[in-house]
Amino acid sequence: MSEPREPLHTVLRSPSKEVVMGADKPFVVIGERINPTGRRIFQQQLRDGDLSAIERDVKAQVEGGADVLDINMGVPLTDEPELLVKAIKLAQSLTDLPICIDSSVVEALEAGLEAYEGRALVNSITAEDERMEQVLPLVKKYDAAIIALPNDADEIPMEADKRVVLTEKIVRVATQEYGIAIEDIVIDPLAMPIGADPTVGRTALDTMLAISQRWGLNMTCGASNVSFGMPGRHAINATWLPMAMTVGMTSAIMDARTPQIVEAVRAADLLLGNDEWGMNWIAAHRARQAAAAAAGSTT
Amino acid sequence: MSEPREPLHTVLRSPSKEVVMGADKPFVVIGERINPTGRRIFQQQLRDGDLSAIERDVKAQVEGGADVLDINMGVPLTDEPELLVKAIKLAQSLTDLPICIDSSVVEALEAGLEAYEGRALVNSITAEDERMEQVLPLVKKYDAAIIALPNDADEIPMEADKRVVLTEKIVRVATQEYGIAIEDIVIDPLAMPIGADPTVGRTALDTMLAISQRWGLNMTCGASNVSFGMPGRHAINATWLPMAMTVGMTSAIMDARTPQIVEAVRAADLLLGNDEWGMNWIAAHRARQAAAAAAGSTT
Repeated sequence: MSEPREPLHTVLRSPSKEVVMGADKPFVVIGERINPTGRRIFQQQLRDGDLSAIERDVKAQVEGGADVLDINMGVPLTDEPELLVKAIKLAQSLTDLPICIDSSVVEALEAGLEAYEGRALVNSITAEDERMEQVLPLVKKYDAAIIALPNDADEIPMEADKRVVLTEKIVRVATQEYGIAIEDIVIDPLAMPIGADPTVGRTALDTMLAISQRWGLNMTCGASNVSFGMPGRHAINATWLPMAMTVGMTSAIMDARTPQIVEAVRAADLLLGNDEWGMNWIAAHRARQAAAAAAGSTT
Repeated sequence: MSEPREPLHTVLRSPSKEVVMGADKPFVVIGERINPTGRRIFQQQLRDGDLSAIERDVKAQVEGGADVLDINMGVPLTDEPELLVKAIKLAQSLTDLPICIDSSVVEALEAGLEAYEGRALVNSITAEDERMEQVLPLVKKYDAAIIALPNDADEIPMEADKRVVLTEKIVRVATQEYGIAIEDIVIDPLAMPIGADPTVGRTALDTMLAISQRWGLNMTCGASNVSFGMPGRHAINATWLPMAMTVGMTSAIMDARTPQIVEAVRAADLLLGNDEWGMNWIAAHRARQAAAAAAGSTT
């Protein structure tokens, strides 16, 4: 029987709060909403220098139970580094949650890391040499952790073992060439939409199990990718995350405003022994009952 | 990377319907309600020879989406073999679903197997020599499949590797001493209440992963055991089954009348690639929408 490795711990920090990701810790909900992708009104507001939507989004993610906030300011025709710095400073004035700095633009990542107070998570690199060369020195310089996707310029591999080979490359390059601690590498195993190919869920799960058993690395994913194009997406996503957690997923970038999904993740924490005696589960259940009673309905 | 074995297929039959359990097949929902345990009124009805509750229970389980029906007639102070035979004959007159014959009384199992038309699942044996000696000849004689629990007279082992050792004993005895095909052995990995011990979920999952990787055996469990004593049991059960399915659980004895749990199981089928192109998922979603529209609410 192949035992998983001792869990590695990825530590993220704000000035006053520490969040630890690990297979023996409660799942880390990375609130995803502070991102203008696909939100045209929000994009125009950001172009006009209006950051008020961020205030609402931070509040909603925190209230929904986010542990970390992902901040992406990828708006065409703006100065992304400047906008990202403003958004990070604003978010840090509103919450003590650690931040995941999310950009495809290296200059934006550097400006964000420079501005951020604490120990950030950087989103993301792939196994492509050029991207690793650009981003990993920043991860080292600013003492951050990094999300890495096991694909390269040639392909997104559709076989779990090829993804493991690319993970091996990422781990080798990051630790040996850039001196990054292995526990600061968080792998995104590439969960693709199940509606486009029925085998992709199993492939992602096989990838996670292999990575968990070989290294004990922390893992994350965009929680809603798998259900893209299908009806009943919340139910699919709420089922997917506990399945992924069973084989080593320890965080997800997700919308904390969906109670069904947050509840599923907390039930999985309980079932994996990461919510000892169900303290969090029972407290959340009481809060839901109180909220339902206040709303005049029953649970 | 340790690959799971080729999935084994357990075939159950009624005169007109075949249900196949396997890791590459949709999850098999074994409807649990036709059981007087903890139902005092039903017990008294059965003592009085009134089987009308069974008619309602069969209907409700079938409508909820059960694939197989578990029938248990363990009522104190009755002739259990006679009652079980009546219940099986009644159920077979009402539905074409295959039946899981559930009794701790060997004579009742034999009478039930004799009366049943088709290929039944028998619930259950343990790794205890005496129980195997009594039940396995019947399983062979009536060409049935058998649920087996990896505990013996000494203990319910709290370590996954000890459960694997007892599974090995069951597989060896059943196949070598009684000539039962390995695909007709369905292991119940012993999922205990998480509220009594926070480690039991992980132990059951580790047991399933090991059994799946070593033999590819089919597995089942009582779906609601893990949540015993906790609040929010439906949410816990609906999370538990997809987690178990990720590491090889292929059926569960559960109440098909709980839509939240049945929906979670069908979402997990989709995510494991066992609902190709989401045909079942999409059809069920449409049915839910139509039902909600008919009820005057929205989904």
